[in-house]
Amino acid sequence: MIKAYAAYEAKGKLRSFEYDPGPLGNNEVEIDITHCGICHSDLSMIDNEWGITQYPLVAGHEVVGTISSAGENVSHLKIGDFVGLGWHSCYCMTCGTCLAGDHNLCSSAQPTIVAHHGGFANKVRAGAASVVKLPDSIDKETAGPLFCGGITVFNPLIQFDIKPTDKVGVIGIGGLGHIALQFLNAWGCEVTAFTSSERKKTEALELGAHRALNSRDPSEIKTASEQLDLIISTVYVKLDWNAYIMTLRPKGRLHFVGATLDPIDVGVFPLIRGQHSISGSTVGSPENIAIMLDFAVRHNIKPVIEKYSFDNINEAIERLRNGHVHYRIVLSS
Amino acid sequence: MIKAYAAYEAKGKLRSFEYDPGPLGNNEVEIDITHCGICHSDLSMIDNEWGITQYPLVAGHEVVGTISSAGENVSHLKIGDFVGLGWHSCYCMTCGTCLAGDHNLCSSAQPTIVAHHGGFANKVRAGAASVVKLPDSIDKETAGPLFCGGITVFNPLIQFDIKPTDKVGVIGIGGLGHIALQFLNAWGCEVTAFTSSERKKTEALELGAHRALNSRDPSEIKTASEQLDLIISTVYVKLDWNAYIMTLRPKGRLHFVGATLDPIDVGVFPLIRGQHSISGSTVGSPENIAIMLDFAVRHNIKPVIEKYSFDNINEAIERLRNGHVHYRIVLSS
Repeated sequence: MIKAYAAYEAKGKLRSFEYDPGPLGNNEVEIDITHCGICHSDLSMIDNEWGITQYPLVAGHEVVGTISSAGENVSHLKIGDFVGLGWHSCYCMTCGTCLAGDHNLCSSAQPTIVAHHGGFANKVRAGAASVVKLPDSIDKETAGPLFCGGITVFNPLIQFDIKPTDKVGVIGIGGLGHIALQFLNAWGCEVTAFTSSERKKTEALELGAHRALNSRDPSEIKTASEQLDLIISTVYVKLDWNAYIMTLRPKGRLHFVGATLDPIDVGVFPLIRGQHSISGSTVGSPENIAIMLDFAVRHNIKPVIEKYSFDNINEAIERLRNGHVHYRIVLSS
Repeated sequence: MIKAYAAYEAKGKLRSFEYDPGPLGNNEVEIDITHCGICHSDLSMIDNEWGITQYPLVAGHEVVGTISSAGENVSHLKIGDFVGLGWHSCYCMTCGTCLAGDHNLCSSAQPTIVAHHGGFANKVRAGAASVVKLPDSIDKETAGPLFCGGITVFNPLIQFDIKPTDKVGVIGIGGLGHIALQFLNAWGCEVTAFTSSERKKTEALELGAHRALNSRDPSEIKTASEQLDLIISTVYVKLDWNAYIMTLRPKGRLHFVGATLDPIDVGVFPLIRGQHSISGSTVGSPENIAIMLDFAVRHNIKPVIEKYSFDNINEAIERLRNGHVHYRIVLSS
């Protein structure tokens, strides 16, 4: 039996939950969980914000632990390996996107916490292809958030072939943005942080930004006019996207990894005139997660975390719900 | 003196106009005009739709003719060369975008018909770098529209590295779209035309489309679900862009070369889920115009034109204003 913490209703406290995962599939592994990050999408699922939650729900998709069991077809992971598991716990492996290496875009991919029990537990099961071995020297306590928050902001650098000579903005310095600043600084880019918090402006500079601008002040945004090759927006609120388009260099891109519910409402003329792009992306493939982990170790990039024990999971979730987390929570066994 | 046809007021008939272009600049050429296409943006300028027109206005920016005079610094063109001139008649040549080969994105580029006299005339002046030599075997009568309409739809194929294995949609089968279909077919792509006209559906298939769908019928659009790598929208009206996003494959792009005044109003979630891009672009660089001309000759790609003499320019413009042109007008001397 797997011992987990489950939500039984929207906004309700998590309570103990045990389930029998059944026989291990030939292509599956079981992970003994040592750490699990809490992501905002765990909260969205717990509170059924997307209307797709099935209770009892075991959330948690920033898992770190060791392989405790491996199916007979699994050859790239062995018992005792330190590994991580992120948003996806299984891919079809045979569709066009999987075969092209874009597993995260597989339309049959199994999310770890949607109709599947996740990482707020002592163990979790997953398809072996979605489980990534940790580099030996990575800090295991802070590695969890890289598997969702980290890869979400790292993936665009790979997808759009961002160069060290590029100038990149990050909107929103929170769970995702604070990791993005570190990656971009190590990538060699000139980094601009956009935040509405004066306190976070200072922290952004410490995390790797070369300047920090007020994300809601048109005059501060304007000081970046036609300077940025890429902007990564991590926020969930509507901002003046047309003002941000004006900060793009020719061929520049405004890229969303945080989703606002409001439509984008950008004018077509500015896109045409500057050959600009607007785009979005979600997490990343297992191979790009592995590449990210290697890069993070080499550059000593770590999510800034608050630590909680699994026993105090409800306290941790309440802190996230109240928007007080600085910058990411990791639960430890 | 240069003898031209000028607009003196919005919606007014063009009348004879003579002007003295002054001494030829060292980096300039003068072209004896044999043909000039009429583009919808000529009409927009004549009618002052963008609020920037200075009268008298000599429109015309799809020029074909021969070099009649060349400044002393001009070495790549000589008197008698058959050449073409498009939307831009001068670039700064020293800004970052010019030096990177993206002259069409130069913020100081001089549009041929904005505060500059264009091609509805017997001669036109232009910076030599913006004037492109015609391939020997090109059909000079139909070449003019390639210099604006043609490069506008060809440029995205270069910019976004479109492959012959890609599946591409074209929205709007008019002055731009009918050239796009020919380019894309020759490029090796699977080509889908979207048009609201039943007649144009048939013509689209003749021009190179492999299928034609009703651009305003949600059920027909839906038959292309998740199939297209690129959509080029050439229309000036608002369509259901969210429905078109659903026709994109993972990593697919909805690209605007026609500008609607309404904002794009696309949701962020679909962009994130499919890693889609929305973008725009305008015309192309001189080098990409030259590459396009070579490709057009090799594949016998020609704009479908209606012929008018310069003497009948007002009749031609009225036909364009009434939306009756099939598909592009070229004036001949």
